[in-house]
Amino acid sequence: MTTRQDCSVLDDGDELGALRQAFTLEDGMLYLDGNSLGPVSEGVLRRVRETIEGEWAHGLIRSWNSAGWMAAPTAVGNRLAPLIGAQPGEVLVADTLTFILAKLIGGALELRPDRDVVLTDAANFHSDLYIVEAMAARAGRPIIVKRINRLTLHEELNDNVALVMLTHVDFRTGEMLDLSGITRDVHEVGALMLWDFAHSAGAVPLDVTEANVDFAAGCGYKYLNGGPGAPAFMYVRSSWQGLLQNPFPGWLGHARPFDFESAYVAAEGMQAYVTSSPPVLALAALDGALDVWDRVTMQQVRRKSLALTDLFISLVEELLPGVFEVVTPREHERRGSQVSLRHEFSYEIVQALIERGVIGDFREPDMCRFGFAPLYLRFIDIYDSVQHLVSVMESESYRDQRFAVRNPVT
Amino acid sequence: MTTRQDCSVLDDGDELGALRQAFTLEDGMLYLDGNSLGPVSEGVLRRVRETIEGEWAHGLIRSWNSAGWMAAPTAVGNRLAPLIGAQPGEVLVADTLTFILAKLIGGALELRPDRDVVLTDAANFHSDLYIVEAMAARAGRPIIVKRINRLTLHEELNDNVALVMLTHVDFRTGEMLDLSGITRDVHEVGALMLWDFAHSAGAVPLDVTEANVDFAAGCGYKYLNGGPGAPAFMYVRSSWQGLLQNPFPGWLGHARPFDFESAYVAAEGMQAYVTSSPPVLALAALDGALDVWDRVTMQQVRRKSLALTDLFISLVEELLPGVFEVVTPREHERRGSQVSLRHEFSYEIVQALIERGVIGDFREPDMCRFGFAPLYLRFIDIYDSVQHLVSVMESESYRDQRFAVRNPVT
Repeated sequence: MTTRQDCSVLDDGDELGALRQAFTLEDGMLYLDGNSLGPVSEGVLRRVRETIEGEWAHGLIRSWNSAGWMAAPTAVGNRLAPLIGAQPGEVLVADTLTFILAKLIGGALELRPDRDVVLTDAANFHSDLYIVEAMAARAGRPIIVKRINRLTLHEELNDNVALVMLTHVDFRTGEMLDLSGITRDVHEVGALMLWDFAHSAGAVPLDVTEANVDFAAGCGYKYLNGGPGAPAFMYVRSSWQGLLQNPFPGWLGHARPFDFESAYVAAEGMQAYVTSSPPVLALAALDGALDVWDRVTMQQVRRKSLALTDLFISLVEELLPGVFEVVTPREHERRGSQVSLRHEFSYEIVQALIERGVIGDFREPDMCRFGFAPLYLRFIDIYDSVQHLVSVMESESYRDQRFAVRNPVT
Repeated sequence: MTTRQDCSVLDDGDELGALRQAFTLEDGMLYLDGNSLGPVSEGVLRRVRETIEGEWAHGLIRSWNSAGWMAAPTAVGNRLAPLIGAQPGEVLVADTLTFILAKLIGGALELRPDRDVVLTDAANFHSDLYIVEAMAARAGRPIIVKRINRLTLHEELNDNVALVMLTHVDFRTGEMLDLSGITRDVHEVGALMLWDFAHSAGAVPLDVTEANVDFAAGCGYKYLNGGPGAPAFMYVRSSWQGLLQNPFPGWLGHARPFDFESAYVAAEGMQAYVTSSPPVLALAALDGALDVWDRVTMQQVRRKSLALTDLFISLVEELLPGVFEVVTPREHERRGSQVSLRHEFSYEIVQALIERGVIGDFREPDMCRFGFAPLYLRFIDIYDSVQHLVSVMESESYRDQRFAVRNPVT
């Protein structure tokens, strides 16, 4: 049986342990929701202050050049690139995840004009489903979007498939898919592969180059800690740049934005996928949030992530045997950086935990979801969280929550 | 001849004079570029600090509800609504101007399924032209986008016209169009009217209700002072809400976002036009920037704006007779809150002025453009700016700039 003392020893030997000091985390809060919204780090505070009180207040309009605002989408993209195994010049930060997906879906369908099927996972995140159907409806030709069971993907792959769009780590279950294997299978039938890395970036090692990924997108506010509603990122393999068209041309993606030409001519490289003026303040926050990532490798992050999730699962099973179904795969190669537990009263249990300072979240229909962010979580946090869970289950205090109005976020 | 003393007297009597203290403006800088990027105000500093150091750092994920982040797009929209004469529940703040236009254009074309023409101004801002053509190409039926001379709009209006999209104040010349009259003419043939208020919001009084405008969009970073790349705003007349569909459905525009339903069902009201998680930090900045607007009426702003632009024009004509062509209309009812001067060496003149601390901008092919933001500009600033312009022209120091590499922003 693992004791709190054992966890404390693990913390003492944790090579990432010092990073926690970079974050603002309240004493007594056990934050297992970094997969929804990461915390504030000192880099964020510094960069936002510099940007507002220095660059904006004093540089004013001149800062578009002098402070590098114009280049911020690609500059922040280049900082983020190593986290997904991308090369410099392959990542852009802008817009929101849904609009980045819209750009990639719209552009990708034009690259496969003779094919009319898009495959996606019926269990994909809902707005991924909405936007792929919306863009298919505007493709200029009839496109069939098939919502499939991802386990039978191979049965659906054929030479009518233009694009496959999957989320790499399932937002509900935390299951991680086989990035390289699926991408290879998709390419074998000549289709294009678009990955949603919302629950992967900063959570698990990714190597889009090795896996030969065509396109990917993800968000900045989860494990990357870029702040609420942080801009999204877009990956386009260098060999597709120039071929993939931006369906939403805007002036800052123009080759010569300040010539104000009446015809659109796309810029070179990733700049072509910029549509609008960059959201400078939000980019500054994400830029600052990336500071702490400069101090780690994704291999270190992964080692600790697996140790944390292993510990959580084993403690839950030891201390609450048979109470929960552990939905997240046990096999490391199929696990992201979260653990989801199924229980009839999951909603009420999550609320009771929140009252005790253990912040996780609930996902329909019956899952308690806990995210494990290795940059700031300690092993004792896992221990303490499970102790709270034990207390909630033993006291049945969650039953008091039974008739509470459901809180739409937590 | 107006003297500096006369201007000082005007400042002493200026009912908006005290507002300048709300802004960070360096001594000696004469900032005539608030039509590109407004300055930092104390409300911005306060709201961004509260949002990061309070709501995000301490509330973390809970702030989506407890701090009202989820409702921020409509809440900030409601604060902005009076500035354009909209009613509560008719304005949303989100995304960027180009994506807001894309939503409105895409939605509007579906409301006139039997019509196949969109009219826009050949002199419209370039990315407005790009996005209207991009959305027309994705309308699901053949659509002709006609770039017209706005002076002959009436000749082009007929019952094939689905939508007319115009920018209310011309970004180059500062000419203001007749909001009510044009909207009425467009409605007479059964077409829909979409106005771009990029250079109007916070610059001139607008009454979308009285003018019976269908749809409008604008940006937050110019006269509204919301910060570089601030989110855009979207106006949908209440009678169109529910009928106008969002072409880019996303989870936060869903009627029940946290039920994670696999079919999209639009929320009520303006919430239906939300696509993604709100950009909370950027919304906080814009929210804070609106504080100072609570202290003025647009009629006060307009009175001072006209006094400032009248003064600038008259000083330029008195002190530099025949040197510049004043491109901006003299008639008040056709003038926005900027003055553009045409000169062969405009680029070089703007650069020479910037070196002297007079910040204006250059617009191709031959215009010096000066914006006049009544919240923080003084009459003596106008006087001093023209004195600098006189010095530049008399010394011919602008000729030193002749071979400088053109700076893409300033």
